[in-house]
Amino acid sequence: MTSRDGYNWTPSEGLQTGVPTIGKILPESNVSSNEKPYDVIVIGAGYCGLTAARNASLEGLQVLLLEGRDRIGGRSWSSNIQGYPFEMGGTWVHWGQSNTWREIMRYELHDQVEKSFNFEKGVKHFELNTPNGVTTMSHEQEDELLASALNKFTNIDGVYGRNTIPLPHDTFRTLGSADLDNISAKDRLNDIASILSPQERAVLEASILLASGGTLETTSFHEFMHWWAMCGYTYQGWLDMLITWKFKRGQSSFAIRFFQEALESKRLKYAFNSPVSHVRDNGKQVEVTTRDARKFQAAKVISAMPLNVLDRVTFDPPLSSGKQSALKIKHVNQTVKVHAELSNKDLRSWTGITYPHNELNYAIGDGTTPAGNTHIVCFGGQQNHIDPEVDISRTKRAVQSLFSAENYSNSHPAPAVERLVFHNWSKDEFAGGAWFFSPPGLLSNHLNDMRATHGNVVFANSDWALGWRSFIDGAIEEGERAALIVRRDLLGAKFDAPRL
Amino acid sequence: MTSRDGYNWTPSEGLQTGVPTIGKILPESNVSSNEKPYDVIVIGAGYCGLTAARNASLEGLQVLLLEGRDRIGGRSWSSNIQGYPFEMGGTWVHWGQSNTWREIMRYELHDQVEKSFNFEKGVKHFELNTPNGVTTMSHEQEDELLASALNKFTNIDGVYGRNTIPLPHDTFRTLGSADLDNISAKDRLNDIASILSPQERAVLEASILLASGGTLETTSFHEFMHWWAMCGYTYQGWLDMLITWKFKRGQSSFAIRFFQEALESKRLKYAFNSPVSHVRDNGKQVEVTTRDARKFQAAKVISAMPLNVLDRVTFDPPLSSGKQSALKIKHVNQTVKVHAELSNKDLRSWTGITYPHNELNYAIGDGTTPAGNTHIVCFGGQQNHIDPEVDISRTKRAVQSLFSAENYSNSHPAPAVERLVFHNWSKDEFAGGAWFFSPPGLLSNHLNDMRATHGNVVFANSDWALGWRSFIDGAIEEGERAALIVRRDLLGAKFDAPRL
Repeated sequence: MTSRDGYNWTPSEGLQTGVPTIGKILPESNVSSNEKPYDVIVIGAGYCGLTAARNASLEGLQVLLLEGRDRIGGRSWSSNIQGYPFEMGGTWVHWGQSNTWREIMRYELHDQVEKSFNFEKGVKHFELNTPNGVTTMSHEQEDELLASALNKFTNIDGVYGRNTIPLPHDTFRTLGSADLDNISAKDRLNDIASILSPQERAVLEASILLASGGTLETTSFHEFMHWWAMCGYTYQGWLDMLITWKFKRGQSSFAIRFFQEALESKRLKYAFNSPVSHVRDNGKQVEVTTRDARKFQAAKVISAMPLNVLDRVTFDPPLSSGKQSALKIKHVNQTVKVHAELSNKDLRSWTGITYPHNELNYAIGDGTTPAGNTHIVCFGGQQNHIDPEVDISRTKRAVQSLFSAENYSNSHPAPAVERLVFHNWSKDEFAGGAWFFSPPGLLSNHLNDMRATHGNVVFANSDWALGWRSFIDGAIEEGERAALIVRRDLLGAKFDAPRL
Repeated sequence: MTSRDGYNWTPSEGLQTGVPTIGKILPESNVSSNEKPYDVIVIGAGYCGLTAARNASLEGLQVLLLEGRDRIGGRSWSSNIQGYPFEMGGTWVHWGQSNTWREIMRYELHDQVEKSFNFEKGVKHFELNTPNGVTTMSHEQEDELLASALNKFTNIDGVYGRNTIPLPHDTFRTLGSADLDNISAKDRLNDIASILSPQERAVLEASILLASGGTLETTSFHEFMHWWAMCGYTYQGWLDMLITWKFKRGQSSFAIRFFQEALESKRLKYAFNSPVSHVRDNGKQVEVTTRDARKFQAAKVISAMPLNVLDRVTFDPPLSSGKQSALKIKHVNQTVKVHAELSNKDLRSWTGITYPHNELNYAIGDGTTPAGNTHIVCFGGQQNHIDPEVDISRTKRAVQSLFSAENYSNSHPAPAVERLVFHNWSKDEFAGGAWFFSPPGLLSNHLNDMRATHGNVVFANSDWALGWRSFIDGAIEEGERAALIVRRDLLGAKFDAPRL
């Protein structure tokens, strides 16, 4: 099945819009013409909406799941192209991510994960390319450099943030923690500029932007520290939890389990290609209207739409001023993620940073395709932002620029690009960017606003999760929270409680 | 409400059997005389059984929960004595424990945890007492000593086990991993004896026994490495995940949430004080008989009883030979956990190891009681094993022996014991020991046997979880697994599947 989302380019076929995915659902709807009001309508079929719809339907509620796209997964989905999975968005998982891993165990997929990195063959080095020149080093040296830089950046209290953010799920627990949200990554870099070597500064800035997808000025230092704390306050944890384990068969092989299990309940109705335009709550019932003017009623609504596109839906009564402020501020992540299949078969163990002058700054060898070519995954962001589909030659050049000419010769030619696969998240009307990353001030001022329920509408999204905010894990956390709120509101605690 | 479990001793009141807990449920049963056959009977109301009963009842099944005790929680429960919580068994939680933390977030208890350690006041040192003498050192030195010893013990592959057990949930994934289960902690200690200082060896042995509750000979080296891998392969992770965060109001304040939510479903029947003696599966229905000859029928049974007491129940048809072997081998953990309230108000920041000659080897300052006294928690095990209630004077002496005479004088007297609180897990007929810890060979030979379903009976327990086996987390993992198996078997996948 081919989704209309995503792009696939090859030299022979040129640019194709839409890529195959098991996340595309057909028939696109199982809604009959005369449905009674639902118990709950869930808007959005990313991991948050899927979790909410699954839990609510399993727990006895009649659920309608509405999704603007033709597929499940939201900002995390995979395309299998000729038997090889490409991750279009959220990719990596780890058992330190409590909600994700719990689901992986639930679906017995723990033996279906594998490592992205493989440092065992071919070109086993890290290329650091800055305006000061090119340095080629071993992966051990790469780790040492990155660890040193990240440790300096995060060591705000002598213990790498442990005292300042002791419990990241309760992130503003200490007095000093909220202060970190008043400054940007740039501010923090300026504070420690004198103790950073030029190489440390380069890899640090590239790492920060790899996390935030914004600019150094728009990246909240607190939010970076929150990620760091979630990773156990160490570089090793950072690597392990952020960029190591992925699904052998791609994210959509995981997301589909949620959808299938919800269907098993026989209480799930769904409609894809059904973007919502209007949500009206009369205090007793909520009416949800799609762009094509279909109307659905339910006792409750779970809005699982991301922050950056929530202002495309009108709410009646209007949202609180706090929520409206957050919607106006938006998050800053405009990550550009491009998969490239390279003719060079020996780059499986290669990594590189080309910063700050390239449109793609950061890349790693991520697999070997069935043709034996190397698959690398490349990241750019707000800085030197590109829309990869607009100028494929430029995108190809950005990929090739990750490999510095001086490392290649006639006998060892720089790799040719055989395929590009990507999703343009910035132009995506249902995402408005990649994973959440906050600018200074947004969370310390508005986290509770974003999380607040509005009448009969519960707002749930990874963008305002407490733990792995921005991650698949945060989406599941929020979906579970929303389903529980709704079920308890509807089914209540009307039971004969024993004396406890 | 007072459970018959647990002991509380004070100088004025002497030894009392039974302590108060919100985990005791009254009325003890809500079963009517003429119940229809249930969908599922869950045997055991520890975290595993509670999770299974909650999930199954929320997801539409009619559930009967049978428990031999008068309380929920199994091997994890807390007693509030004069407003102060004592943890009788499993205590610590962390967001690296995926199932536990997910539940903590579900019940919005993430701001209800606090740290056990507080190294800010009074006597801020670590006392190491061995036959070679007493050494008093700072907590920084304690950490350095323990980290060095643990790193030597676990560094089997140059990267502290990372290559040998890369994914601990799939613990026998690599060839080398199962080999670790052929040797004991003692074997490994012998291998590295030449590189351990006497102090390192002492704290290492005490740490191993703190984990296993067995002897060095009966402790599987693999299982220790599995714990280590789950903790992120570092001493800091070991501390963070095993012994740092606890509930401000005690474990029972967490467990009760599962029970309450299951009741909300209105599909939960339960009976406490109902130990099961016999389980008979005729292939279509299972009959469960209690010791007092009450009989209950269900389509499915989830046995959530621990390994060490499973042989007290007869199964018809008989269990597989593999399962029977595991039941015969048993796990080795005979931890003795004793809480002591000490007259000395300045010991909040104290820690100590007295090894190997004391009955209690390991202790930490864990809180300050309402009276301003210091609460310490002390651990012993199979070595020098005591039943603390049998000879209170001896138990008191073991507590006092943790404080070496040379650190005290007339002006700084050794602390007097004002209260002892404990549960004797070894004599507990429903536990047969503390948390699971395997002897060499048990898991590499029988993990799959222990996990296997037997006709209509699903076996679920933390003792054979894949992730945080032995922990509350593993119990929840297993309860979720069992409920899913049962629901899918009963409700099936009889739905009109869309083309995916």
